[in-house]
Amino acid sequence: MRSVVIFSGGLDSTVLLYRAVEDDAGPKMVSAISFNYGQRHSKELDAAYKIASDLGVANHRIVDLSDLRTVLAGSSQTSKDVEVPEGHYADKTMRATVVPNRNMIMISVAIGWAVSIGAESVQYGAHAGDHAIYPDCRPEFVLAMGVAADIGNYRKVGIKAPFIDIEKHEIVSSGVALKVPFGDTWSCYKGGEFHCGKCGTCVERVEAFSLAGVRDPTVYR
Amino acid sequence: MRSVVIFSGGLDSTVLLYRAVEDDAGPKMVSAISFNYGQRHSKELDAAYKIASDLGVANHRIVDLSDLRTVLAGSSQTSKDVEVPEGHYADKTMRATVVPNRNMIMISVAIGWAVSIGAESVQYGAHAGDHAIYPDCRPEFVLAMGVAADIGNYRKVGIKAPFIDIEKHEIVSSGVALKVPFGDTWSCYKGGEFHCGKCGTCVERVEAFSLAGVRDPTVYR
Repeated sequence: MRSVVIFSGGLDSTVLLYRAVEDDAGPKMVSAISFNYGQRHSKELDAAYKIASDLGVANHRIVDLSDLRTVLAGSSQTSKDVEVPEGHYADKTMRATVVPNRNMIMISVAIGWAVSIGAESVQYGAHAGDHAIYPDCRPEFVLAMGVAADIGNYRKVGIKAPFIDIEKHEIVSSGVALKVPFGDTWSCYKGGEFHCGKCGTCVERVEAFSLAGVRDPTVYR
Repeated sequence: MRSVVIFSGGLDSTVLLYRAVEDDAGPKMVSAISFNYGQRHSKELDAAYKIASDLGVANHRIVDLSDLRTVLAGSSQTSKDVEVPEGHYADKTMRATVVPNRNMIMISVAIGWAVSIGAESVQYGAHAGDHAIYPDCRPEFVLAMGVAADIGNYRKVGIKAPFIDIEKHEIVSSGVALKVPFGDTWSCYKGGEFHCGKCGTCVERVEAFSLAGVRDPTVYR
């Protein structure tokens, strides 16, 4: 059972990758794909590279889709003209971090790779806390993409989002059991030397460690 | 009513673009998107650039996704190791020209752009003759992608494939009425100075003009 894991180098997808390596019997059975889609900084991708190497996932690709910046405007994630909002992740202002159709784009490329290498599934790390802000992190979206993938290819590739019904603090808890190197993961939407501690994803990260009762190894500015 | 047209510079998508410009009341209401996905040659993209300029479609983007070549292997379209098959388009050997999940990838990027600029639909040029070879050119695929797009974004973007039930020769016929400059379009899978006349898409092109009873302005080697 070979999976392709969409792997950003953030907390959720790192736990997902560790989980896939355990479920699929070793790092050779798992392929990881990361995307440069023109995000503001490359801290996540640096994190992704280190984590995949340390874990022994040799089949890790970082695909350069940075030219997408020219068409996916309007998000603080890809445009320097839109400020990264601070505050809680569930706030309405966080909609400024929505990159239009990002998950469909990443999933569709991952499916293409899965078909090429004969992998049986594509996994991504959407979780219950994402639903409020990101419509492409909802169970019905995963289902619809699975149907489209089935119809559109000769080879069957399932779409899995194993965290879709659980909260981020539960992801942290399961990461502890898997010995995930949380300190190597990167969440912050800003690209400083350390996590800013103020943007939506930093606030969510702090909260998740706290709720899970797990010591947070992150250095915040 | 503003559309984003997925526009390769080939015969079908050129007729589609002309049709959209007529339906949507002028070239300013239509946006065109072309992709460099690591195809073997850039003749199509050169054609796309000229055709969109001449038609007055100012909002035309050529998005560089050439790094996809590193993950979408196994097709004669993206890999120099796989030979372009010759013969009729409907032959089984033509499966070698299938780029895994290509339409889902292009549609998902086009949807992202449509959301960014407030366009109401994405159009692509799949036609009835494609169904035999390309599963992502079938009506049920268009339907499934439309459902996924609806769920995955705040803004509703429809997916349209107006040629999906008609044959290529009927596309040629409707192109005549729209005054499409057929001689500027590029179909050949090989990238020579002239169309080769032998690969699947050349054979299909010759046949379409012949069945439509329209003079074929293409120069074949």
